[in-house]
Amino acid sequence: MTFEEWMRSVLGRVETALEHYLPGPQTAPAQLHEAMRYAVLGGGKRVRPLLCHAAGELTGASAKALEAASAALEMIHVYSLVHDDMPCMDDDELRRGKPTVHVKYDEPTALLVGDALQSQAFVALTDGAALAPAAQAALVRELALASGSIGMAGGQAIDLASVGHALTREQLETMHRMKTGALLRASVRMGALAGEAPGEQALQSLDAYSAAVGLAFQVVDDILDVTTDSATLGKTAGKDAKDGKPTYVSIIGLEASRALAAQLRSEAHEALVPFGARARRLAELADLVVNRVS
Amino acid sequence: MTFEEWMRSVLGRVETALEHYLPGPQTAPAQLHEAMRYAVLGGGKRVRPLLCHAAGELTGASAKALEAASAALEMIHVYSLVHDDMPCMDDDELRRGKPTVHVKYDEPTALLVGDALQSQAFVALTDGAALAPAAQAALVRELALASGSIGMAGGQAIDLASVGHALTREQLETMHRMKTGALLRASVRMGALAGEAPGEQALQSLDAYSAAVGLAFQVVDDILDVTTDSATLGKTAGKDAKDGKPTYVSIIGLEASRALAAQLRSEAHEALVPFGARARRLAELADLVVNRVS
Repeated sequence: MTFEEWMRSVLGRVETALEHYLPGPQTAPAQLHEAMRYAVLGGGKRVRPLLCHAAGELTGASAKALEAASAALEMIHVYSLVHDDMPCMDDDELRRGKPTVHVKYDEPTALLVGDALQSQAFVALTDGAALAPAAQAALVRELALASGSIGMAGGQAIDLASVGHALTREQLETMHRMKTGALLRASVRMGALAGEAPGEQALQSLDAYSAAVGLAFQVVDDILDVTTDSATLGKTAGKDAKDGKPTYVSIIGLEASRALAAQLRSEAHEALVPFGARARRLAELADLVVNRVS
Repeated sequence: MTFEEWMRSVLGRVETALEHYLPGPQTAPAQLHEAMRYAVLGGGKRVRPLLCHAAGELTGASAKALEAASAALEMIHVYSLVHDDMPCMDDDELRRGKPTVHVKYDEPTALLVGDALQSQAFVALTDGAALAPAAQAALVRELALASGSIGMAGGQAIDLASVGHALTREQLETMHRMKTGALLRASVRMGALAGEAPGEQALQSLDAYSAAVGLAFQVVDDILDVTTDSATLGKTAGKDAKDGKPTYVSIIGLEASRALAAQLRSEAHEALVPFGARARRLAELADLVVNRVS
């Protein structure tokens, strides 16, 4: 199977899993469920589900287990986008090429969509038909720690506090390691933990891979924010500069940012050496993250 | 032990558990953690932890298990209060006798405090030192279903949509069964599930108890909203009427509401008959919910 075929197959199964794990649009309260589905379905790069599936190949995780884990990861990611886009946060009107949830519906709906998506992620992870109880518990803990105040939500708090402040490169890295890195790391770990127990050393190698890919993802985001238009990105381009947010491009410049992205890709590949050919999809995803154009 | 002594002992242990399961005020990001602790610690009636502990007496649940479950329940409850108080929702300035989180800090902080408290609840529930993996998984599922779009968050969506509309008593009941009832029911079930497997019949009796107590709680809330001042309540009194929100008092009147609360207390007691003396604390809590003055 080529990488493109593998991706298409995973993306198809992830979409079906999200459909399955989201309450139906007729289930009461219908408007809330419609808005949750609007936010989640039919869009997004699904980077976290792809990482989760690629890591699952290392430990022979079942398709059902990876689908539940991927649905949970994507719901957490989308909840964070919906809340970050709200007027009291980044106040953004475009996401994945569509009006943001508070624009399409209203602010209270956006708040509740995010809140309910977070809960629904943990409902998906405790599906007894997909995961054994011990794996459910382990994956819940990974996801909860990665999402909360020492992970994604904490990174968002640091990001907000940094607007208009000059950050050092180290401070910027800490913020991104929490805001986006923690959930990307959890995506890889959850994929591996959904199969045969991977062992501490394997998890450490995977964490090194995730750290490099996570940072590369952010560096490339910052590059695209200044080099690409809103239509291609599916979100408002040039927004970081306008908001006075520190980025890799603003701190180290465009060329150094490109060099950094290439270096991080090499680091990601190196971390995968112990796994040999089984880590092929993870290696290809590192390339995708660095080479993407939107 | 008298009921008052039992309550004091439980409340003390719950406060310690919340301290334990919340990140410390020096942990980065410090301001977010300080705000989470401000929202959670040193206030509130802790009804959910009390119900959880009382139900745990039926199945011999360990103190550690009940403390983890109680901390998780209270964090979910507080996250919902913090978000409900935000300007785009109920826009309230007083909670538990203190300024609400968005007033004391700011709106983005309130949003993130709620988001992170929800994650932290699932971190607490997956504490391997408190609960075995199978119990962790079972309790996570109970809590996630009770909090999400078919539970608490869904009830809040219906509540918001109902402002300014005439609701029937049945519609009002459906809304409350989701908005507050689901989490109260989960409190009781989680306490029972934290010990020896309670069996389906016992869980059904407990659900009947919770349904009566949950509704009584809401009826009494509506009564207190029109008969008590803000200082005693620790939140803004008379707000439902001002906001045009349907309440039991507005639909069936004050005297009928009082009679309904008394009837629901009897129903709660009846549901506990199969458990005999072991259900003493649950019976006393039903009395407390109906007789409370704030």
